[in-house]
Amino acid sequence: MLERAFGHISPYPEGSCFASRAELSRAGLHRPLIAGISGRGQEGADSIVLSGGYEDDQDFGDEILYTGHGGRDLETGQQVGHQTLIRGNLALAFNKLSGLPVRVIRGAVPHSLYSPEIGYRYDGLYRVEDYWRERGRSGFYIWRYRLKKMPGSLQLGPAVMEEQGSALYPPRQLTTVLRLVRDTEQARQIKALYHYRCQMCQVRLEGPAGPYAEAAHIRPLGTPHHGPDSSDNILCLCPNHHVLFDLGGVAIADEFTLIGQEGRLLVDFRHSINKDHLRYHREHYWIDPTED
Amino acid sequence: MLERAFGHISPYPEGSCFASRAELSRAGLHRPLIAGISGRGQEGADSIVLSGGYEDDQDFGDEILYTGHGGRDLETGQQVGHQTLIRGNLALAFNKLSGLPVRVIRGAVPHSLYSPEIGYRYDGLYRVEDYWRERGRSGFYIWRYRLKKMPGSLQLGPAVMEEQGSALYPPRQLTTVLRLVRDTEQARQIKALYHYRCQMCQVRLEGPAGPYAEAAHIRPLGTPHHGPDSSDNILCLCPNHHVLFDLGGVAIADEFTLIGQEGRLLVDFRHSINKDHLRYHREHYWIDPTED
Repeated sequence: MLERAFGHISPYPEGSCFASRAELSRAGLHRPLIAGISGRGQEGADSIVLSGGYEDDQDFGDEILYTGHGGRDLETGQQVGHQTLIRGNLALAFNKLSGLPVRVIRGAVPHSLYSPEIGYRYDGLYRVEDYWRERGRSGFYIWRYRLKKMPGSLQLGPAVMEEQGSALYPPRQLTTVLRLVRDTEQARQIKALYHYRCQMCQVRLEGPAGPYAEAAHIRPLGTPHHGPDSSDNILCLCPNHHVLFDLGGVAIADEFTLIGQEGRLLVDFRHSINKDHLRYHREHYWIDPTED
Repeated sequence: MLERAFGHISPYPEGSCFASRAELSRAGLHRPLIAGISGRGQEGADSIVLSGGYEDDQDFGDEILYTGHGGRDLETGQQVGHQTLIRGNLALAFNKLSGLPVRVIRGAVPHSLYSPEIGYRYDGLYRVEDYWRERGRSGFYIWRYRLKKMPGSLQLGPAVMEEQGSALYPPRQLTTVLRLVRDTEQARQIKALYHYRCQMCQVRLEGPAGPYAEAAHIRPLGTPHHGPDSSDNILCLCPNHHVLFDLGGVAIADEFTLIGQEGRLLVDFRHSINKDHLRYHREHYWIDPTED
């Protein structure tokens, strides 16, 4: 079986055009010949094709409200039953949990500002920012996904309209908390190794699309810390302990005792943790409340 | 006492110039006449002035590595002792917890690409993305803050250099989880009402700069949900329950019993919650695991 490939596929840059689904499939951009979602439940979705098949899809360019699959009559294309959170629908939900990007391919759709005139066009990487279900125009439940273009991809669409807040592209709303999870392969492996259980408190959060945990870097990435994105610098934590760790409310001693609360870091024998990084975190983030 | 004003101050748009600290103070952009940080521990910092006083400050335009205050000799300006997480330093740390924006004002600094030639210039709103302590050039502990220009503000600085990854502005690094908390006044009030305790599990996370909780919207903001940013649509939750609630792993019945786990939502008698929003969340996000 071919491994599922997430992200850009060489040598096809964003904007690459294809005449048919067969060509798209051979290029590896979207393998299934008919299904709109390429993906499986606990693996995530690597690509989708927007081709106007769903009456509830809404395409704003950099933002897409995408409809899951299922419940349509094979002959008429009408929605005749509920969609459920299985197969491709579950796969797209898993992208939100894991932060995996999904390739978006647009097919020719009448009256869409963003679709190509003919054939198919690869339009870059999107994040699954949210998913929920609602009653579609048909009255049946459909699954909905909010896809947002990832930074670094080419900008699409009428930026001016967005600024002016036209009906076409409503103005960006206030948001309060936005989690941007962009796990690398190393982060995913560490989370899988611990079965998404927090190494500090053993909590495992369960949502309808599967378990959720976060990959926390011990020594932070980026200037000026320059921590590496390697497994010896990554912990699997629940959001609460991730926040506490990043804020300096808890730290880890060399022998894995927790500092600032009771307990010990759970460490799998296959997971080697670099003690220099633990020291870096203690030195830079941990404040002994009795110190000052 | 004047209330601390966060955000832009009318009628001074970004780019407004001032001849002196006294003028800045009268305009309300940065009230203190000498201190570089305007703010208090549990209120947050509303503005800072960058004027080259600290040897460890680094200014990359849209990103600033800012040094806290304290520990300097009054006469020589040399760092002669450790900085601690009190006063303005604690205030800036609180901005990270609460998502409050800080006004950045640049004074004339020799050899800085981003400072004005003379006087002071208001350069817009920044978020406090992270804080930590390190040993400064002097060998003493200093507190450090990573400030990032908020979107919607004017772009500053050499974008091309950033893309090319020059030494001046290193390329943007990979990040795994980024929490963007932008609490409104309503959200802050709800969090204060519950003393930062989670309404679902009563957990209260404590970091060195104070308690941390998140404001969760019951019916989400933004298209297509259009939930309001009003207190009857806001809960005070720990990050774990916020994630679970957003993923549909837990929901709330009209009489405040939790669905999907044991327990009941703690509701203060002064906090009226709109049951239509609870229903909206159940309908769109909650999936009964026994349903399909």
